[in-house]
Parts: sequence; structure tokens; C-alpha cells
Amino acid sequence: MPIQIRKLDSSQEGFQQSLDTLLAFEAGTDAAIETSVAKILADVKTRGDAAVLEYTNRFDRIPHGGAAEMAAFDISQAELQAALNGLPSAQREALQIAAQRIRAFHERQREELRGFTYTEPDGTVLGQKITPLDRVGIYVPGGKAAYPSSVLMNAIPAHVAGVGEIIMVVPTPDGVKNQMVLAAAAIAGVTRVITIGGAQAVGALAYGTQTIAAVDKIVGPGNAYVAAAKRRVFGIVGIDMIAGPSEILVLCDGTTDPDWVAMDLFSQAEHDELAQAILLCPDAAYIAKVEESIARLLPTMPRQATISTSLADRGALIKVRSMQEACEIANAIAAEHLEISADNPQQWAEQIRHAGAMFLGRFSSESLGDYCCGPNHVLPTSRTARFSSPLGVYDFQKRSSIIHVSEAGAQTLGRVAATLAYGEGLQAHARSAELRLKPQP
Amino acid sequence: MPIQIRKLDSSQEGFQQSLDTLLAFEAGTDAAIETSVAKILADVKTRGDAAVLEYTNRFDRIPHGGAAEMAAFDISQAELQAALNGLPSAQREALQIAAQRIRAFHERQREELRGFTYTEPDGTVLGQKITPLDRVGIYVPGGKAAYPSSVLMNAIPAHVAGVGEIIMVVPTPDGVKNQMVLAAAAIAGVTRVITIGGAQAVGALAYGTQTIAAVDKIVGPGNAYVAAAKRRVFGIVGIDMIAGPSEILVLCDGTTDPDWVAMDLFSQAEHDELAQAILLCPDAAYIAKVEESIARLLPTMPRQATISTSLADRGALIKVRSMQEACEIANAIAAEHLEISADNPQQWAEQIRHAGAMFLGRFSSESLGDYCCGPNHVLPTSRTARFSSPLGVYDFQKRSSIIHVSEAGAQTLGRVAATLAYGEGLQAHARSAELRLKPQP
Repeated sequence: MPIQIRKLDSSQEGFQQSLDTLLAFEAGTDAAIETSVAKILADVKTRGDAAVLEYTNRFDRIPHGGAAEMAAFDISQAELQAALNGLPSAQREALQIAAQRIRAFHERQREELRGFTYTEPDGTVLGQKITPLDRVGIYVPGGKAAYPSSVLMNAIPAHVAGVGEIIMVVPTPDGVKNQMVLAAAAIAGVTRVITIGGAQAVGALAYGTQTIAAVDKIVGPGNAYVAAAKRRVFGIVGIDMIAGPSEILVLCDGTTDPDWVAMDLFSQAEHDELAQAILLCPDAAYIAKVEESIARLLPTMPRQATISTSLADRGALIKVRSMQEACEIANAIAAEHLEISADNPQQWAEQIRHAGAMFLGRFSSESLGDYCCGPNHVLPTSRTARFSSPLGVYDFQKRSSIIHVSEAGAQTLGRVAATLAYGEGLQAHARSAELRLKPQP
Repeated sequence: MPIQIRKLDSSQEGFQQSLDTLLAFEAGTDAAIETSVAKILADVKTRGDAAVLEYTNRFDRIPHGGAAEMAAFDISQAELQAALNGLPSAQREALQIAAQRIRAFHERQREELRGFTYTEPDGTVLGQKITPLDRVGIYVPGGKAAYPSSVLMNAIPAHVAGVGEIIMVVPTPDGVKNQMVLAAAAIAGVTRVITIGGAQAVGALAYGTQTIAAVDKIVGPGNAYVAAAKRRVFGIVGIDMIAGPSEILVLCDGTTDPDWVAMDLFSQAEHDELAQAILLCPDAAYIAKVEESIARLLPTMPRQATISTSLADRGALIKVRSMQEACEIANAIAAEHLEISADNPQQWAEQIRHAGAMFLGRFSSESLGDYCCGPNHVLPTSRTARFSSPLGVYDFQKRSSIIHVSEAGAQTLGRVAATLAYGEGLQAHARSAELRLKPQP
């Protein structure tokens, strides 16, 4: 079957509108899911473990009539370690190398933000203190989309930040455990693994139960129920971004093997029918070659059905006037993943203001970053890279301001504060500053 | 009238439950407000300026039959400058000193997070790039709660971060402009001031209109309509935290003038009847003195009605066993403002893990920090200091990961990535990595 993929040209009339249509994506909320999630959360809040047990037995079809106690859902560190030891050596080593590299990158992040204090001439000390969160929850999807790489990418930054307790929840529908996921937990520094999932797991983490301590933040991807539950508990706990479909934008100057670019587009499209893969290139002949590669390679892909739907519905090959214009369009798209597959990619990277992660040069396929380069693969989607960032150590730390005013400082600052406080009609603020003033001689 | 304020003792039975009850606060949502805000946002999204004009004329009772064009709502830089020049010199200088100090502190923040790259032995370059947001909106409430200090605290971090355009919206009910607010805008680096407010202003900033460019993030406090609108546009744009009532927690060892502590509690309580002011002290006799100070000073306060309601409904004087225990309770409370009014406050500060801002020593009244110490006064409320931070330069920047894999790097990383990708059943990811492998000799 001929591959269907939209072709656009930035010099044609109506291009901007076509691009806007292509990029438009609204998550939408499902009233039935919202109602169901609200009920589950309220139930877990009120009844704790008993509710978590019931929902888990029901939704995950735990065999043998259901676990009677929450303890049955805990996976011991010994079992995690056994999962790691039991993996084929190539998988075990790959996980370990990936974990080591992710840790190294996030340790660099930690070095950047260490807090500071400075002392003013009158002895006043100002600064900020950085502290890790006490306890975080990591949601890991079970079933088909069980990704050990997500365990590493979510847990390692928390561990590097110094979070005291990292509680991972992962549903095991029908009691089936994913050994690579457990192995990843063993090497990522996870404190406790509980085989529960869905809105009930989010509720247990947010409110706490008799056997699960309430966490301060919940991160990690999940289905529509999990996303709805995270949105609802936000404020009681912190959450990471609610991710939209994954996206790749490839900027190519026409010098990369077209098979490579085609496969990079596939690697995004295979995630999900809603995933988005777009190529921007100034060379029409090269775009034709990529199209040929797509047509030739697609039938070889096990996930070709997903890939072809994604490319047909949300993909595009876009002819641009120049790499310069490609960079401008890339800034407007603010893609989650941006590949700059070009000679001297740095010159173009300097013009990019908005992207979750930039992959420079033809050897930097997104898939390397997804697994093992070191930077995080949890990235802002749906144009939110305009204002948000990859998951990082920073998401597991917070700042506290430090203000230690000297007696001399209180004299000068007190007058300024009192003047402004009276101006705002806040007299107690003003008096509080004035009480610290020494009587004028 | 005798002042009503709850007194608790940590050594008494039921203390933990009393404390939990005291701290419990649920914002709650108002269905009528939600419906109204949803309608206004949809209308602004569809009709743009025309809708903003109508709502503004209606809600803010703009005189003379209402403005006919959006341009009428813009305040020129000349008018902002004139407002600054027209202030009494003490107010003008106080604003300028505050602005300069806030700028200095936030410049220190900017220095801490500059991005980095590092090169691995095989030539692979990894790093992160820090970029400011392109355009942000700052919401400034009009009417009674018009606070010039909020203009400084919200706009200066954006300006220091390097945000290209800072668009401030401030409603002017009945056409009345607050000169101190305009003066603050003049010195904070605001690009454009528009006298619109409410959900319609939030909608205009989030979606853009014919005359207002869509922003990337909206920050700043507002009433329930503004808060509901911000929550709804989150995801399309970034937002700051939705603030709850303000809180102060004073840890005092009993050596500070009790009048000072009483006034510090007032300075929080005067904000709002829902504001919360709590004292923790190991010295019962000192607590009695603070109570006397409260009784004596309260009648002198212009806002005594608000203060006494706040203290009666949500305040507390708590006798603790020791300063050590006070620190433990403070970590559980995770207060927005924490004063450690004690000898050698640093020893206690080291034990604090969770607080928005820490005010150390008896001269560091919260009011100094509210106006002019330099650190931000936009702080996490309602226990969210467990996982979130003061507003800062970081809120107006974002990170992009940089991944530039060398040809040699692609050989080692490619094998690792392919192994993990096959393990996850993502064959296009694996093939994309494998295509970069050189044929084995």
C-alpha cells in the first residue's frame, strides 16, 4: 500500500494554516473517566488500604481470589535484585550502562544548583537553601507499555537529588511482573516497589494509607485514569507535567542517509497513533528520497500499522526555503525532540530557543537519547517546551529563601518596608518593621 | 473585648489532631465561578478583543459609556514614568531601593543556573541550554488589594531572566488607576501595561487577541475568577502556583521582645481573615507575654477586625517541649513564612527542611522580606513548600537538553539502546540506533 504522509511547502499559500492544523492537539477530558477517578480517589482517601485492595483485585484481576493484605503487593529488594541477576547479560549490562550514564548527567545538574548565601556590608545575610523532597512516588505503567527505561529516567534524578524515600507503584495485571522493570528498579535506587496501579495507586500515594506513607510528589506516565488522578491530587502533592503524545521534529540539510531519517521518524511514530513525526528540509529532492525510504522500510517494521496511522494522521514532510527558516519554524513548534541532522549542526542549534531536547548531528538519533545518552527522556510535549523543561534533579528539590537581617540592616530596610507598607495600607506590616528601629538619637 | 486565640501544648493528648485540624484548609471550587469563567474564556478565545472590551466595560464599569477600542486600555511608558515621578519622594525612593535589592538577589539566582556542556572521551557532547521565555503575562489585582510590591516581585525575576516581553494586566475598576502600581511597573522592566483584568484578561494573555500577543506563561495573584481562569489555561501556557491564604510560623526561644512577635503575627493576620499566624515556643511564661502584647496592641491596629478574626479562626500559640521539637513541627507544617526569632538562629535553621522563606534572628521580620530584602515574596502556601519553591528567575527560564553523539559514541551507545529498545518491543527505536553502527570488520 502506498504510504500516506502529508507534504507541505513553506512557500505555498496557506502554509501557516496547514501547519497550525497539523500541530493542533487538544487532550480533551472524558466525563466518565473523571467521575470514576473522583470516586476512586475519595474512596481511597476515606478507606485507605481496604479500598486500594478492592480496586487492585478488581482491575488487575489478581488471581487466587485477591490478596488479603497490602503486604502481598510489596516486592522485596531481594526479588528486585533477583530480577536483575536473572536477566540475559546483554540486557543487564545495557540497563547498568544506561543507569550509570543517566546518573552522571543528573549529577552534573545537581552540581549546578547548590544554593548560596551572601553577606551585605551591614551584616545582613541573604540566600537560598536547596533541599531534596522527603518522599516521592513514581508511577510506572504495567501491561503492554511497561518501560524499564522510564523507571531509570524517573527514579534516578530523584535518587541523585537525595530524596529520602522513592516509592514506585507498578500494576501487574493478572499478576504478571515485568522482569526488566523490576531489574531497573533494583539499580535506580528505588526504596519500595508496590504492585498497584491506576487512580487507586495515585490516591494511595497522595493521601497515604495505613501501610503507605503519603508522598510529596508523584511523577511518571500513565493512562487516562492515572493522568486524571494526578491532575486531581495536584496541590496536595506536586506532580510532573501531564504528557501529551510524543513528537519528533527533524531538521535536515539533505546530507544524512535518508534511511536514517526515515527510521528516526518511525521511531517516534511507533509509540502511538497520536505520535507526531515531522521533517523540515530545504531540499525537495532529498524529501523525495526520504519518502522512498519510508515506503521501502515501512513493510519491514513489526509496528507498521501504528507507524502508518501516525504518519498519515499527524506526520508531515515539509519543504522549507532554508535551514534558517527551518529553525524559525522549529521555534514555533517547540518540539519535544528536535533532531538537527546536518553538517555543522551547532550553527543551527544556536538559533533554537524552544525544544525539549536537541539532538545534534546525524549520529544523534533520538533513540540513543531515549535510552542511554544520559539526559532525561521525560520531556515537555505539545509546545510546552516554550515554558517548561525536561524532568531533572530540580524537580526533586526545592528552594527556601534565607533572610537574616542584621540590626543595622533592620534600620535601613525597616524604613523602606514601612514606607511601602503604609502605601499599601498594611499598617501591621509597617509597625512590625518600625518596632525594630532604634530610637533616633 | 478579650482576644480569642487558640492555645495548644504539644505535650497534651490529642495535640497532633488539634494541629491537623488547625492546618486543614481546602480551597474548594465554586461551580458558579467555574461556569462563568469557562464561558468568558471561550468567548475571548473566539471573539478576541471584542469580548475583552465588552467584559471590561461591564465588570470594571469603565466610565463614559465604555472604551470603544483596545488601544484605550494601554498605558504608555510615558504615563508609567509620570506616575513614578509624581510619587512623594520617600515612596519613590523606597520603590527604587526595593527594586534594586530584588534585582540583585535574582541576578544571583541567574548566575547559579547557566547551563553546561561536557565532552566525553569519544567526543560525544552532552549538556543543557538555558533560555528565557519569549513572552510572559503578569496579573496584578486592581481595586483594594493593589500591591506595588507584587509588581516588583513578579516582573523583576522575569526581566532578570531575560524575558523578551513582559505584559502586565491590571484592572482599573471605575477607571481608577493606582499610581504606585504604575510607578512600580515603570521601574520593574514591564514592556506593556494593559488595564484589563479578570478571567477576560487571563484569556487574552493565554490565547492572544487581535491586539494582544499570546504569552507563554502567566504569573501573579488574583481573585477566585482569576485563579479559576489560570487553572483552566494551564497547559496552553505555564502558570505559577495558585496561592492559598498566607501563613506565618514563628519559632521563638522566648528571648525576643514579645511586642515584636505579636506584631509579626498581626502582619500576617491583617492580610485576610483566612490568613494563618502561629507561634511555637518552649516557654509558657513568654507565650503569656505575647498574649498580653496581642491584647494591648490589637486595639491600635486599623485592620483589627481582620486581624482578630484571623487569629481567632486560624491562629494559635503553641507551647512546645523544646526548640528542637519546634523545628520538627515546623517541618511538618512547611510554612510559607518561617521566622526563627531566637539566639543563634542558624542552629535551628539547619534543621529546617521545608519552608518557603526562613527569617532568621529577631531583626528579620517577615515584613522586611515582603518588601525589600531581595528574595521573592511569592512563596508556596498550604504546605506546598514540601515540594515547591519561591517564585524566581528559574520560573522564567527553561532548559533544553543537548545531545551531540560522535560517530564513535554512536557505536557504543547504539548497542546499548538497541538492546533496551528490543527489550521494550520498540523495534524502530532499535533499528534507528543500529543504522548508525558501522559494519563489524
